[in-house]
Amino acid sequence: MKELFNPKVIALIGASNTDGKIGNTIMKNLLDYDGKLYPININKDKVLGLKAYKSVLDVPEKQIDLAIIAIPKEFVSKSLIELGKKKTKYCVIISAGFKEAGDIKAEEDVKKIAKKYKIRVVGPNTLGLLDVNSGLDCIFLPKDLERRPKAGDISIISQSGTVGATIVDLMAEKHVGLSKFVSYGNSADINESDLLEFLEKDEKTKTIIAYVEEVIDGKRFFNVAKKLTKPVIFLKAGLTERGQKSVMSHTGALAGQMEVYDGILKQLGITQVFSVKNLLEFAKIQPLKKIKEVCIITNGGGYGIILTDQLELNKVKLTTLSEKVKSNLKKELPFGVSVNNPIDLMGDANADRYIKAIENTKESVDTYVIVLLGQTPKLNKGEVEKIINYLQKSQIKKVIFLSTYSKYTRMLEKNFIVYEWPNTLAKAIKLLCK
Amino acid sequence: MKELFNPKVIALIGASNTDGKIGNTIMKNLLDYDGKLYPININKDKVLGLKAYKSVLDVPEKQIDLAIIAIPKEFVSKSLIELGKKKTKYCVIISAGFKEAGDIKAEEDVKKIAKKYKIRVVGPNTLGLLDVNSGLDCIFLPKDLERRPKAGDISIISQSGTVGATIVDLMAEKHVGLSKFVSYGNSADINESDLLEFLEKDEKTKTIIAYVEEVIDGKRFFNVAKKLTKPVIFLKAGLTERGQKSVMSHTGALAGQMEVYDGILKQLGITQVFSVKNLLEFAKIQPLKKIKEVCIITNGGGYGIILTDQLELNKVKLTTLSEKVKSNLKKELPFGVSVNNPIDLMGDANADRYIKAIENTKESVDTYVIVLLGQTPKLNKGEVEKIINYLQKSQIKKVIFLSTYSKYTRMLEKNFIVYEWPNTLAKAIKLLCK
Repeated sequence: MKELFNPKVIALIGASNTDGKIGNTIMKNLLDYDGKLYPININKDKVLGLKAYKSVLDVPEKQIDLAIIAIPKEFVSKSLIELGKKKTKYCVIISAGFKEAGDIKAEEDVKKIAKKYKIRVVGPNTLGLLDVNSGLDCIFLPKDLERRPKAGDISIISQSGTVGATIVDLMAEKHVGLSKFVSYGNSADINESDLLEFLEKDEKTKTIIAYVEEVIDGKRFFNVAKKLTKPVIFLKAGLTERGQKSVMSHTGALAGQMEVYDGILKQLGITQVFSVKNLLEFAKIQPLKKIKEVCIITNGGGYGIILTDQLELNKVKLTTLSEKVKSNLKKELPFGVSVNNPIDLMGDANADRYIKAIENTKESVDTYVIVLLGQTPKLNKGEVEKIINYLQKSQIKKVIFLSTYSKYTRMLEKNFIVYEWPNTLAKAIKLLCK
Repeated sequence: MKELFNPKVIALIGASNTDGKIGNTIMKNLLDYDGKLYPININKDKVLGLKAYKSVLDVPEKQIDLAIIAIPKEFVSKSLIELGKKKTKYCVIISAGFKEAGDIKAEEDVKKIAKKYKIRVVGPNTLGLLDVNSGLDCIFLPKDLERRPKAGDISIISQSGTVGATIVDLMAEKHVGLSKFVSYGNSADINESDLLEFLEKDEKTKTIIAYVEEVIDGKRFFNVAKKLTKPVIFLKAGLTERGQKSVMSHTGALAGQMEVYDGILKQLGITQVFSVKNLLEFAKIQPLKKIKEVCIITNGGGYGIILTDQLELNKVKLTTLSEKVKSNLKKELPFGVSVNNPIDLMGDANADRYIKAIENTKESVDTYVIVLLGQTPKLNKGEVEKIINYLQKSQIKKVIFLSTYSKYTRMLEKNFIVYEWPNTLAKAIKLLCK
């Protein structure tokens, strides 16, 4: 499936000069990609400055690696046949109105044509795909509405375009790196199992986020999933009876029973979540791989207590500091600081206190959870930078920050794994404590 | 306790001209308050332009309504005695280093003096207090670090300064109104029961957020709490054994057992939460009071499904739309739109579709949950404004928005109750479905 994300020759069926049209937005997003791009439009000679063709059959190439179809449903079959004749390898069908709108026949037609011509199809009814590493970007959302994240190693497959889009947007805001994002819609051909199988082999993917409304072929899914070695964070939607009914009118899929998924996903070692937010919150901690025990350093006593409660309830081991370490800490830190775990540096903590607390404990600590509340008076930007610089220069690898909404939260996110709330953090840590 | 929040005469012990000092920050925050302010400083004749006094005894007033003490612990007792002689009614002791740092005697001294002179004391070891309606602001965080929310009817009592501060800051960011915020620290005198009792009577408070590490007097708490008619969202910290140990070194309190609190709070009809975030998320929905059933309108099919799942799992009733309503919706909305509940307006929805969906259902709907994902292509700022204007002009009162991080989320928050994630929203709605 590598060529799906690294095509050399691309055709955009429905490329448009009209602002706001899907075929216009995709065209703009594709212009930055380093490959040959052929806009197809029956009425225009040029689209956004590039020569346009009336049919893909007119394109001066022997073969198309990737075609994107963004035209009304009625014309999709004809286009797909032409793409078949042009030996197209992959096709993303953005167009909607198929199974999800009750038009089973139109969807079956797509399947038949794809099979006949051996075109591998993503969609129909998809938002498109995005590969931050290769630069391929054919999602139909403009970059001012849907920000693009920096390159990273989390990949997302999402049956729903908007669910995927909100996670991608949030990743950009929070400086979490993305590898690939595939909105796979009705999964007429390429489905969740195909994508998981591919991502398992993909060098650029280390963690997988999956939003799935329908598992097409349970047996295949099970066989693919049990071979996965990469962490998968999985949200199965349509767990309730009424939720299943909504799935029918969204991607036309039949959703499965709650208990069945609970059991199977557990057996497969897949992390099931029930909240869109946790798809990302549980994926972003995966680079730390394993956590043995945790030492908390905080400038907010209350947050230290809540974190302790939450870590205990999630059975995360808290480091016991030796008497010697504690007595050193007492010597180096001002009166009033609590030198147990949590180490409570108090509300007037500055960078110096954080650094001393780490310096004096680092030999006995596996993973730090550093609470840095930016609402306190002594932590100005310079102080926070000092802490960041110290951590980057030191050999300390396993650091997680807790920083509840402040102007420093984004600064920390550029460099570290950051959570905003104690119980999400505790649940995420639990995942790595097996 | 009304005078604590509306004092006419205020003395600030430890008022300072030095930027960054606690007594300087509080002084600045108090300058805007409409009352007589007397800075006390043994070395200066003026503080921030106001005549300063060496002792509160020199102040040309017969009585002090509120004194704020922000000087080192060693000098607190002496100041408190002088305040007693000056017939001070209320005193907020910001100074730390008392019970929470192991100095039981210093704390007992404070109690004795307060009792002897009938001064009611908040603290020691507190961040101060804030009343957005009266304008009283003596918390020691500057406004650029800790934003102040607009006036509203949620009041917060927090034993931890930083926990309270992060919620207050978040309320400002999210345009949720605040009435009073009291950081009550070690609760040497005024404790959680006193504050709950007062807030129950307070006209400006409709919902109470409470973060409590220690319930001082269980029997009193039970008696006060059972008389509460206002909704209380309560986080009891120090539920686990290790969490309790951290409480000892934070506010010097003894925390209670998890199971005990579970049972008692349930019996008292108090909503217990385990996450700081949910203190606010569950408080901000309270103005809707009761929810019978819910109709979802969405521009993201996936979010519609997840919401349906979450509402079903939380036993929230979903409105069943009549065949007549559905057939009207079908006539008015484009092909592909799903007219069940959720009403799925599809990713290219504009204001017109939202308004038609509401117009055609409003007579059969109790509460709307409107999913508005700003990452979609047709919802520009003008369209979102159209929806907001329509809702404000119409008679529709019960509307909750779901809007996952986008540039419109804050716009909506200025006017409506907004959630960012489906399961928090579903859990919050459940609270009002009793």
